[in-house]
Amino acid sequence: MSLLFDEEDIDEEEIDEYRDGSVRLRNPHIELMDQDILYHLALGSGSHDLRRMFGDVKFVCMGGTPKRMEQFAYYIMKEIGHKLPAGTTLLDISQYSYRYSMFKVGPVLSISHGMGIPSVGILLHEVIKLMYHAKVKDPIFFRIGTCGGIGIEGGTVVISEEAVDGMLRPYLELPVLGKLLQRPAKLDRQLARDLKALAHPEDPYDTIIGKTMCTYDFYEGQGRLDGAFCEFTENEKMEYLSKVHKAGVANIEMESLSFAALTHHAGIKSAVVCVTFLDRLKGDQVMAPKEVLDEWQMRPQQLISRYITRYLQRKGRLSVEGHGSMCVKSPRRYKLVQQESENYD
Amino acid sequence: MSLLFDEEDIDEEEIDEYRDGSVRLRNPHIELMDQDILYHLALGSGSHDLRRMFGDVKFVCMGGTPKRMEQFAYYIMKEIGHKLPAGTTLLDISQYSYRYSMFKVGPVLSISHGMGIPSVGILLHEVIKLMYHAKVKDPIFFRIGTCGGIGIEGGTVVISEEAVDGMLRPYLELPVLGKLLQRPAKLDRQLARDLKALAHPEDPYDTIIGKTMCTYDFYEGQGRLDGAFCEFTENEKMEYLSKVHKAGVANIEMESLSFAALTHHAGIKSAVVCVTFLDRLKGDQVMAPKEVLDEWQMRPQQLISRYITRYLQRKGRLSVEGHGSMCVKSPRRYKLVQQESENYD
Repeated sequence: MSLLFDEEDIDEEEIDEYRDGSVRLRNPHIELMDQDILYHLALGSGSHDLRRMFGDVKFVCMGGTPKRMEQFAYYIMKEIGHKLPAGTTLLDISQYSYRYSMFKVGPVLSISHGMGIPSVGILLHEVIKLMYHAKVKDPIFFRIGTCGGIGIEGGTVVISEEAVDGMLRPYLELPVLGKLLQRPAKLDRQLARDLKALAHPEDPYDTIIGKTMCTYDFYEGQGRLDGAFCEFTENEKMEYLSKVHKAGVANIEMESLSFAALTHHAGIKSAVVCVTFLDRLKGDQVMAPKEVLDEWQMRPQQLISRYITRYLQRKGRLSVEGHGSMCVKSPRRYKLVQQESENYD
Repeated sequence: MSLLFDEEDIDEEEIDEYRDGSVRLRNPHIELMDQDILYHLALGSGSHDLRRMFGDVKFVCMGGTPKRMEQFAYYIMKEIGHKLPAGTTLLDISQYSYRYSMFKVGPVLSISHGMGIPSVGILLHEVIKLMYHAKVKDPIFFRIGTCGGIGIEGGTVVISEEAVDGMLRPYLELPVLGKLLQRPAKLDRQLARDLKALAHPEDPYDTIIGKTMCTYDFYEGQGRLDGAFCEFTENEKMEYLSKVHKAGVANIEMESLSFAALTHHAGIKSAVVCVTFLDRLKGDQVMAPKEVLDEWQMRPQQLISRYITRYLQRKGRLSVEGHGSMCVKSPRRYKLVQQESENYD
């Protein structure tokens, strides 16, 4: 636990941030724009006072479905003792985008990212720009998810050491202007260790650090036998999964590659924490009953909550108030952004 | 118009269906399974009587957001004169999945696919299996979307001739068991021509056939200057878009590659019809006001509606009734599927 939150202990090579901790936009064009519309979030730099709305954010937590991230918002609200003014409730800030849901609980944003690399990628571009416009310093991004495990029991919590693709390559490959660009899918190793240190010895499950394989497909791409197509045998599948297991892969999901690559490129500390729903060496279908899955799903949330709570305790920032009310700078532009976002996709 | 619905005119090489038109599952494992749970749809072959629920489906229409596909469901209901029993309304069949929304209007399914290739890919695997379990014959799949145009005015309707990736390659490349698999991203050319023939001469916009580029990213992947990162100049962007334009690409979006490749592989006739929201040769941001975008968004829906309406008229199947009520075969399994789907992602 001694290393926890020791912010001096950063590998020099990993520093991609401005000296003051502001999020770095690696895009010279943004500053030249009259306004920046974050289409898929239904927010804009000309329409909203993003600094007043989001300037106090420290943690950005992402997960698959709107429902889970709404539930996490209420959970973390309780955990950090955040109070809403009487007669108010949480609002989906991006409700007019019809794509992502975003909830804000004091210093924590809880956002749904949908399924797959492109979906989480669009979100990350816009949330990184949001951090920039809001002048947030040193934000920490978490992905909280579910996944398939390899050679570990269902219910195990896996903190990703790094992300690899279906070919075991540790980078996100993306065609940009007709050329294949490669971005290292690195995650913050210290943050991963700090999270692991927060696992309780009495937790009735293991919390481990391992490589995460990220695929573009749930069925064939993950070696499942139960998709609409399957052109391999069960033996070939098992051979592949064993090979992947030997290479240090603990779990398989569909977003970590982009999540790691984009946060790393922006110089943002990030971690991926997923709970396994099955051991893929034993099958393709999830067999555990609902109550069990519900309990399992809470495990990554609990770990992240421990981290956030300790951080805020240490900073004396539990139950912060003030920042974060909906601030419309320009009613005309506000309406425009809302309307355009409703349409675009 | 003479070729419209001329079902004999099919290229022999294109036939991937069983003789009786049933959807072919290229997966020998499914028949051996006790039940097939379509996780992300909250449906299952053991829990639901899929044949009774979906046996009358002929058209599967997909689009990005739940909201748009709900709206399309009500629109097509009006167009084909489908009547609901008194005191009933449309229900999101996949509401317990919290991922996709699915509405059924007689022979038409209207489903949201989220954003990006992985998201539409998961859905296609499960909907193709759904067609198989429901014993649907010769279904036709449509993707109705919005996109960026290249060298064409905003509001133009583009029917995709074929899909290409960001490297202009006409196939979906997917790592499967550690090997790169390539699936041709072919669409039905006759269906595209039939759809084009349904464009009215008095339509105040063009309806064209062209290649569609499908990318894994909305910002850098589409050569936008306004993402969180941009490592190219405006000149390099314009050079790339011009090259792509010269190669016959009319529009850019994020799902057609998987949509074309998976439907083609399953032997299902399919088409992609998108409306352009801007000309990317002129900018990256959508500038048209809401009312205009709303009207534009209806254009692909109108074209698909013309096709469906004519087809049903020809078959004397307008205002069909009977099939399609919610049929629970096993209450215990029904509950289980609902619960498992709620958790999985």
